[in-house]
Amino acid sequence: MTDSKPTLGVGMVGYSFMGRVHSEAWRNVSAFFDLPVRPVMAALGGRSREQAAAAAASLGWAAVETDWKRLIERDDVQIIDICTPGDSHAEIAIAALAAGKHVLCEKPLANTVAEAEAMVEAARAAAARGVRSMVAFNYRRVPAVALARKMVAEGRIGEVRHVRAQYLQDWIVDPEFPLVWRLQKDKAGSGALGDIGAHIIDTAEFITGRNLVGVSAVTETFIKERPLAEASSGLAASSTQEKGEVTVDDAALFLGRFEGGALGSFEATRFATGRKNALRIEVNGSLGSLSFDFEAMNELWFYDSSESDAGFRRILVTEPDHPYAGAWWPPGHGLGYDHTFVHEVKDFLEAVAEGVDPAPSFEDGLRVQRVLAAVEESAAHESRWTAL
Amino acid sequence: MTDSKPTLGVGMVGYSFMGRVHSEAWRNVSAFFDLPVRPVMAALGGRSREQAAAAAASLGWAAVETDWKRLIERDDVQIIDICTPGDSHAEIAIAALAAGKHVLCEKPLANTVAEAEAMVEAARAAAARGVRSMVAFNYRRVPAVALARKMVAEGRIGEVRHVRAQYLQDWIVDPEFPLVWRLQKDKAGSGALGDIGAHIIDTAEFITGRNLVGVSAVTETFIKERPLAEASSGLAASSTQEKGEVTVDDAALFLGRFEGGALGSFEATRFATGRKNALRIEVNGSLGSLSFDFEAMNELWFYDSSESDAGFRRILVTEPDHPYAGAWWPPGHGLGYDHTFVHEVKDFLEAVAEGVDPAPSFEDGLRVQRVLAAVEESAAHESRWTAL
Amino acid sequence: MTDSKPTLGVGMVGYSFMGRVHSEAWRNVSAFFDLPVRPVMAALGGRSREQAAAAAASLGWAAVETDWKRLIERDDVQIIDICTPGDSHAEIAIAALAAGKHVLCEKPLANTVAEAEAMVEAARAAAARGVRSMVAFNYRRVPAVALARKMVAEGRIGEVRHVRAQYLQDWIVDPEFPLVWRLQKDKAGSGALGDIGAHIIDTAEFITGRNLVGVSAVTETFIKERPLAEASSGLAASSTQEKGEVTVDDAALFLGRFEGGALGSFEATRFATGRKNALRIEVNGSLGSLSFDFEAMNELWFYDSSESDAGFRRILVTEPDHPYAGAWWPPGHGLGYDHTFVHEVKDFLEAVAEGVDPAPSFEDGLRVQRVLAAVEESAAHESRWTAL
Amino acid sequence: MTDSKPTLGVGMVGYSFMGRVHSEAWRNVSAFFDLPVRPVMAALGGRSREQAAAAAASLGWAAVETDWKRLIERDDVQIIDICTPGDSHAEIAIAALAAGKHVLCEKPLANTVAEAEAMVEAARAAAARGVRSMVAFNYRRVPAVALARKMVAEGRIGEVRHVRAQYLQDWIVDPEFPLVWRLQKDKAGSGALGDIGAHIIDTAEFITGRNLVGVSAVTETFIKERPLAEASSGLAASSTQEKGEVTVDDAALFLGRFEGGALGSFEATRFATGRKNALRIEVNGSLGSLSFDFEAMNELWFYDSSESDAGFRRILVTEPDHPYAGAWWPPGHGLGYDHTFVHEVKDFLEAVAEGVDPAPSFEDGLRVQRVLAAVEESAAHESRWTAL
Repeated sequence: MTDSKPTLGVGMVGYSFMGRVHSEAWRNVSAFFDLPVRPVMAALGGRSREQAAAAAASLGWAAVETDWKRLIERDDVQIIDICTPGDSHAEIAIAALAAGKHVLCEKPLANTVAEAEAMVEAARAAAARGVRSMVAFNYRRVPAVALARKMVAEGRIGEVRHVRAQYLQDWIVDPEFPLVWRLQKDKAGSGALGDIGAHIIDTAEFITGRNLVGVSAVTETFIKERPLAEASSGLAASSTQEKGEVTVDDAALFLGRFEGGALGSFEATRFATGRKNALRIEVNGSLGSLSFDFEAMNELWFYDSSESDAGFRRILVTEPDHPYAGAWWPPGHGLGYDHTFVHEVKDFLEAVAEGVDPAPSFEDGLRVQRVLAAVEESAAHESRWTAL
Repeated sequence: MTDSKPTLGVGMVGYSFMGRVHSEAWRNVSAFFDLPVRPVMAALGGRSREQAAAAAASLGWAAVETDWKRLIERDDVQIIDICTPGDSHAEIAIAALAAGKHVLCEKPLANTVAEAEAMVEAARAAAARGVRSMVAFNYRRVPAVALARKMVAEGRIGEVRHVRAQYLQDWIVDPEFPLVWRLQKDKAGSGALGDIGAHIIDTAEFITGRNLVGVSAVTETFIKERPLAEASSGLAASSTQEKGEVTVDDAALFLGRFEGGALGSFEATRFATGRKNALRIEVNGSLGSLSFDFEAMNELWFYDSSESDAGFRRILVTEPDHPYAGAWWPPGHGLGYDHTFVHEVKDFLEAVAEGVDPAPSFEDGLRVQRVLAAVEESAAHESRWTAL
Repeated sequence: MTDSKPTLGVGMVGYSFMGRVHSEAWRNVSAFFDLPVRPVMAALGGRSREQAAAAAASLGWAAVETDWKRLIERDDVQIIDICTPGDSHAEIAIAALAAGKHVLCEKPLANTVAEAEAMVEAARAAAARGVRSMVAFNYRRVPAVALARKMVAEGRIGEVRHVRAQYLQDWIVDPEFPLVWRLQKDKAGSGALGDIGAHIIDTAEFITGRNLVGVSAVTETFIKERPLAEASSGLAASSTQEKGEVTVDDAALFLGRFEGGALGSFEATRFATGRKNALRIEVNGSLGSLSFDFEAMNELWFYDSSESDAGFRRILVTEPDHPYAGAWWPPGHGLGYDHTFVHEVKDFLEAVAEGVDPAPSFEDGLRVQRVLAAVEESAAHESRWTAL
Repeated sequence: MTDSKPTLGVGMVGYSFMGRVHSEAWRNVSAFFDLPVRPVMAALGGRSREQAAAAAASLGWAAVETDWKRLIERDDVQIIDICTPGDSHAEIAIAALAAGKHVLCEKPLANTVAEAEAMVEAARAAAARGVRSMVAFNYRRVPAVALARKMVAEGRIGEVRHVRAQYLQDWIVDPEFPLVWRLQKDKAGSGALGDIGAHIIDTAEFITGRNLVGVSAVTETFIKERPLAEASSGLAASSTQEKGEVTVDDAALFLGRFEGGALGSFEATRFATGRKNALRIEVNGSLGSLSFDFEAMNELWFYDSSESDAGFRRILVTEPDHPYAGAWWPPGHGLGYDHTFVHEVKDFLEAVAEGVDPAPSFEDGLRVQRVLAAVEESAAHESRWTAL
């Protein structure tokens, strides 16, 4: 059965890891959030018609297009959701916005600052015409992360002194793991830096409400050559005999300073053996601290120095009054990775329906891109301090 | 787009907490598991047409019925999914099975042993005609729980000595929390015992592969009277001025012995302040141990005494070779409560498609019901040992 | 150098595990606590002069006696510290008290209720003459446990509803581990029950300030026969070829009720593979909860339901205002197992110096003994409820 | 009673925080370790005779000296234990070594590289004459840290890729906390950097067996002025009305590279609200990882990627075959902060008795000093990479 809500047709480009999880979000958002609009999964874009059709059937899309330009042209599509690697973001997003389609674009916004700048310009022009755009930093929509931001904003940890942010994975520790697109600079822009470093930069700025003003960095590629890839899905892949050069960083570490004087320590790596998806952030303030690890995504740790018998407390962020959590299950019934995307499209749809610009904007995406560039710049120049 | 798979129409009775999460399961299972059949969300049953229609629109059901008997009669329905309180399970399930509909029934199977016995009889008769039935102990489908069972079966912890199982909640600690249906014996059968105690009984027997052979118990109702309820959703509710008697247990504790001689300690309570949904189980064997807490549902702790420098290790149960987990995201990207129901309907649909009896069967549900009855019996007779 | 404080000579009987840790306590207490008296390690009692002399030299005792009766007679001894197995406690303690010596006696107070009653009588008579006695439940002196008691007494968790107490060890999981004295009923009185079960009974009553009023129990001896022991130290031992019968329980589980209506779940076992010294207790009250595990002995977990964004918080019990902790190091510099004995003799010496009865008294020890007896009684009678 | 072992007289300078814990070590080492020599607590040096005498009586020293030069001259002193602030280390140590006394010196070795170099020269000359010296990096003697080093050396984590080291405290977060000697450059040399940063540098190099080859750093003093101090003990103090300038860093962060190519991230701060003494280190290797936090000092976390169902495991480092642990209590009975000093003097005494140079040597202390200097150099020059 359907209700009488206005609908918005969605066209999604790409149906790999990100495409699968975005599809789940579009498919479920209306069951959990009472939105002013109802998204309709109109069409899926993919180069191979056969594969795209199979994906569409499995993921719930009504049609397929083999050319993203045709997808943009469709009358039943009002939203373009970009789930491709970073090298195609700018072209697709700019064309979609020009065509008056709202755009949700995966992160990092682009592979270069120049591309990101062009996208911001397009987004601004589009916004003036009521066309919305958003970059998909999904970790902002983890209830615990959203709660952390709220608590910092309310002053519950006082003045921020330290940010300690890490994104630790280990999926390429094996030197025989193949040279997938994420390890190629022309496709991915950078390695751990842009893929996961971008997330901790955005998360740190989101939680603290402060932007980075400068960085000092080192990067490293531990394994310089890898077997060429045959096929990949998600972060897994199979390999061939031939080898190719790894053209991105395996790990990127940097120190930073935030507006207001807080110090930041950042580390993004795919070589932290045993850490699977450990996006971690701790913020120390003058009155308290907050700590989070995505591997235990339903928990936020909070220290309030004003309490007698103080201690870090494990808040299960599943209460009705916690961000997003009330839409789901009773307390203690935790959410998963994919729920963050449901929250993401919920916020996007609400902004589109209400005629306001959603956050994070392309401008937010550009700022992260500039930090990524500064990190590479500093790493290339003896770690010298690089202002933003 | 659709594929060429055969379909099975589902009719679901009830659309509250369990109905919402079952709906999500039916809606998503085909996107993550490549099943031999495709479920179609044919119709939703609910007494109020208006409310049922709103629920159907939000949850994705194609039609509504206000009488569950009509739901069973529908030609486009091959599966009946029972999400109502325990007092109606027997009647609906028996009717559905008699009508040749496969049945998935929420737990506890029934409110009394007699009802459960009648259901088992109906299930046996139906199975002889190729009609399948399953009771919905969803916690079996937590990847960590399924992995624990596999590891016990493989002998990795040796001979089982101890089971320590708790299901701790705190949602009625406040004496002003109203008298919802879960606190009324005629609707719910029992209190913490049947609602959450049933889960730890099933989970303990499932993981160890051993059944309980006897119990000694105490039960308690800390708050004897509560305000009458006005409206409820999930585990939350609002209350009126008038008071009524609480006719179920607030907490049930029992000791047990398993086939093979292992000792069990069980505790189900809604008065463990701060514990939100802590289904916990630890199993100690002669060679190792396993430990689980649903509040950190993506983790299984394993101790292997044969290792040098042994210690309990935190297995993030998100690897491709872990039960169910490979269907979802890369390692470290955890799942949530609702995913267990996706796994549940996946297993149910596979069994139906393959023409085999799914587990847990109504017989498994009956066995749990008998443990519940033995607990009440023992508690009523000075905790005397009560054989099963 | 010495100060002008009055001294109290100590005579200690036994120099094995408990003797070593008591010696450390006597040797160090004056360096950390500014006491009104200074203990002097006068003499050590042990049957073998050679071994006792070696122990005395290593542990810091000034002299040795091979007969505990001679130790009691010494003029330079005002305190008798009993560190022998339970079968000799009554005889030594009663003789020492009769001789006007203050007595610190290891737990369990005795091997039988009758012995414990005689000891209580002797202690009462002695107290009337200003002679003090104390039973050594050292876990009361863990700063986190003492803080927990204080918080319960202050009403910070409200009315107590649940106590969940476990003492889990695994040192005899191996069936080839030999038949040391702790596995022999004539020496040890009982097995896990008296050795470690006694501790959780005392700790539960200490923290809650409520006594148990009844129990229902099961006990088990998983391994009925073991190799005879050759030599043992601490909990380790070597074995011979010959086998003997294990005459004590390997595990004891019981349910209980406390004054005021709280429910208790208790488990003491030496078969919890991987749990080394896990004395755990959780107390749920109407307003909050407390949780403790000795394997992380510097931490107390506290849940306060009145807080916004509540959660269990990990209090590092190392602050200057925490019980005992201020005497030691700055915050975060944790204490170890042995420190609890320093606190124990500190409290004992203060009570003796101030002329008051120290706690826990022999009467407290007797009460625990009665619980142990009730557990055995219930276990022997189909787990029937046994009042205290 | 005493044994027939040869003795070594100890003279200790300073009796504040470090002096108290060193005293405990000298007082207890012979009771737990069967050493070839027996230390005798001969004399304590302190400027105020009255205070030194009171400390000596409490801590167990036989005599006092008000001039450290007199302490060195004493015939009954063969070991000088230096527990004063860093500004006096060089003078005392060099004089003691020249006088043929073995020296145990608190860390950091000195306040400047020049002083440290002079000390190394003196230590080398002394070693040629059989006189030993050691710098007191006590955290090497945490059993978990010693076990971590052993496991890395055995190749159990493979090639080291990442070191993540933090030493987090919060005792000066309050801007009204007074200007104690640790906040004054002339006394302390530096702030968090030398006090606690020195520990993580040494611990990282100790565990990995690799030295740092270069660093890039930032330092910060958040609170520039503080009330002058009246009196202090441990890390606590009281304050006056007048204010003075803080001349050391509050926090120091740096990135580094190790021999062999591993990357390091280091952070030492006294502004991590809620972190009391969190010396943390994680090492990621090509085959596994190790992780440690001093706030849970009896635990070492180990990930072994070769295991099926791998996960970080919590090794309770209390087993008989773990470094140092066998000398103490049965498994699961944890140690405290002070025990590390018992281990330290045990290793020192063994080396002296065996006529070998103990580790860490003054040279090790100098290397740490050079890292501290490089950090300050880099921080003063736009974080530029500074080679070692």
